[in-house]
Amino acid sequence: MDITDVWTELAIPGRRIVYLIMDGLGGLADADSGRTALDAADTPNLDELARDSSCGLLEMVGPGITPGSGPGHLALFGYDPLRWRIGRGVLSALGIDFPLEPGDLAARVNFATLDDAGNITDRRAGRIPTDLNRRLCDKIASAVQLDFDGTLFFEPESEHRALLVLRGEGLSDDLPDTDPQATGRPPVDMTPNSDAAEKSAALVADFLEQAHAALADESPANGLLLRGFQRHEPLPGLEERFGLRGLCLAEYPMYRGLARLLGMEVAPKPDGIDGLFDAAEQRLGDDFDFFFLHVKGTDSAGEDGDLARKADVIEAVDHQLPRLLALRPDVLVITGDHSTPATMASHSWHPVPVLLHARHARRGSAERFDETACLAGALGLRRGVDLMGLALGHAGRLNKFGA
Amino acid sequence: MDITDVWTELAIPGRRIVYLIMDGLGGLADADSGRTALDAADTPNLDELARDSSCGLLEMVGPGITPGSGPGHLALFGYDPLRWRIGRGVLSALGIDFPLEPGDLAARVNFATLDDAGNITDRRAGRIPTDLNRRLCDKIASAVQLDFDGTLFFEPESEHRALLVLRGEGLSDDLPDTDPQATGRPPVDMTPNSDAAEKSAALVADFLEQAHAALADESPANGLLLRGFQRHEPLPGLEERFGLRGLCLAEYPMYRGLARLLGMEVAPKPDGIDGLFDAAEQRLGDDFDFFFLHVKGTDSAGEDGDLARKADVIEAVDHQLPRLLALRPDVLVITGDHSTPATMASHSWHPVPVLLHARHARRGSAERFDETACLAGALGLRRGVDLMGLALGHAGRLNKFGA
Repeated sequence: MDITDVWTELAIPGRRIVYLIMDGLGGLADADSGRTALDAADTPNLDELARDSSCGLLEMVGPGITPGSGPGHLALFGYDPLRWRIGRGVLSALGIDFPLEPGDLAARVNFATLDDAGNITDRRAGRIPTDLNRRLCDKIASAVQLDFDGTLFFEPESEHRALLVLRGEGLSDDLPDTDPQATGRPPVDMTPNSDAAEKSAALVADFLEQAHAALADESPANGLLLRGFQRHEPLPGLEERFGLRGLCLAEYPMYRGLARLLGMEVAPKPDGIDGLFDAAEQRLGDDFDFFFLHVKGTDSAGEDGDLARKADVIEAVDHQLPRLLALRPDVLVITGDHSTPATMASHSWHPVPVLLHARHARRGSAERFDETACLAGALGLRRGVDLMGLALGHAGRLNKFGA
Repeated sequence: MDITDVWTELAIPGRRIVYLIMDGLGGLADADSGRTALDAADTPNLDELARDSSCGLLEMVGPGITPGSGPGHLALFGYDPLRWRIGRGVLSALGIDFPLEPGDLAARVNFATLDDAGNITDRRAGRIPTDLNRRLCDKIASAVQLDFDGTLFFEPESEHRALLVLRGEGLSDDLPDTDPQATGRPPVDMTPNSDAAEKSAALVADFLEQAHAALADESPANGLLLRGFQRHEPLPGLEERFGLRGLCLAEYPMYRGLARLLGMEVAPKPDGIDGLFDAAEQRLGDDFDFFFLHVKGTDSAGEDGDLARKADVIEAVDHQLPRLLALRPDVLVITGDHSTPATMASHSWHPVPVLLHARHARRGSAERFDETACLAGALGLRRGVDLMGLALGHAGRLNKFGA
């Protein structure tokens, strides 16, 4: 039992909540300009909204811990990421609309390039085109014959990414990644982490042997790297936990998959930032309690180390923001799922600015929406998982606790 | 084990602590004036004290969670309200000086008005006078004969409120409220929440049937609504946990009851705010370690949506404050048990300003005592339950942790 269970206990119907998540929003100041992407962006609408909102900073997983996108979003949705762990395999499966069933063992696959000695020379096989990926997946799926009472699925995602799913009784996910996260060495051997995973490890090893044989004459994608093995255990959804029927407006597979995992309805893919706000205008009147709007560009620009482009994405969102405000959401939250400082070109552990706008939101002293100004906001610096409770409270969705 | 148990482990004798609790102190800015009641009140003494204190904000139960008065005060006294849950029935019993014994099953009673079809038309029976309440309680207590090896108590509180206590072996509190918290429908049936509560549910159902028969010819109070069933399990007191022998100066029953529950001595009821400070002058020299002074008017005004009156109550306290300061309390804490914004006319989830004045209190940047200024205080935004540890620390009442 943690505080999120208390919200479950207290949940009642109430007003509607909108999350606008800019992936990897938080940043660090660039050494030359002294500005983060949020500072550098011209954001009159976000800044005005911040002055009329409760602002703060969210630490998604814990002090010093860099969140993946899955845990970052789980925290935002009120699922303590230390309690609810989701592997990349399961997220990938959900992201390509693969109909995962309870007990399925899923793993994320990269096509890779191996040299004659079996060492990895490219962990992404030169980011092969998705068409080639599809052909190779078909080739593997028809070549491999596993000796077990179950089913193998091998499905393409995009570029070099694919999905492995084994469906059968008694599978275990206590398996190592075969991706060593480095080149110049061979894939990691598939040896089980525990006795309970011996059967699964043997199956996966057999699969890899047959798949590598089938790929032997291919170039550059002549190898497979597996990671994030997970046996799928369904999570209680947002409706079960907090009484929220949710709608997801997101373009990228992983976020769509995560939303589906939590029982949200997933709208058709919006096209870019304009398309996202178009979709918001079309769907925010629909009969849902919770709307999850996701912007990927902030994270992609951060990952590329491109502070100016990240600022451009933020400006584009700011420019569209009045369209969302015109819909008068009862509770509007704007934040990110983690920081992706362009100065680091990677996810980071730094807390993420957050803004909560609602009728009964207490104003603090944040005069802008950025990493520094939000320190003076009424929400303070707090755990990412707190956000859902705050949103529920401001939406009038939590009963009083005790007499 | 939580952090409060570490305080128990480290507790030693030390200096004295005074809590001045203004019930429902926290607020929100009024849309017209832009001011909370604390902002609007002229509080030169509180503001001067804030500049010479550690200030901050307390979140009593958790993010987004609106505390009842019981959990709010438990947090202030160092009892995590998620761990120590007290039902309204037990608090009510303590508040009217009812000598509750371990194992007693207590519930809060409202006299209500039912129409001919048995539907509730007034959940408080027009707030009947306390004299009528007394007569009806006597009538019920003498009319009802329960077939069990135990004792029934039915005691008046004030207006429409009364107390039901069953004393006997094997009683369970896994019972529903019969108060549906709405009019136009009948009371909720007394069906047990679990098998273990079957006997108790049958007893309560029998009581309700006989009591309603006894009230059949009464108007407007011809029905009873029960809520907050709780079997009384004594809590470890403030002395056992933190070495604090406490004295309570409070006018309202619930707060006196809660103090008694935690083993405090409860002084005669002070008469209003002047009377509270009179009592403080008379009693602060007595041999106690902890003094709990309670002001109810801030909450009542907030509940009535009357920001000006709430500000008046705060000003009245501010006006008396020099009398308390003249007694030179070693550690003086001023805060509330939750927010009651007049703009919401109800308790709310918003953190409560707090001020801790002591010889070794570190000063922050709070220039006034209000919701915004306290964001810049040295205590930060933190859990309500943290307060007792800070008070104990500043009172020199906690040993060093480790060597």
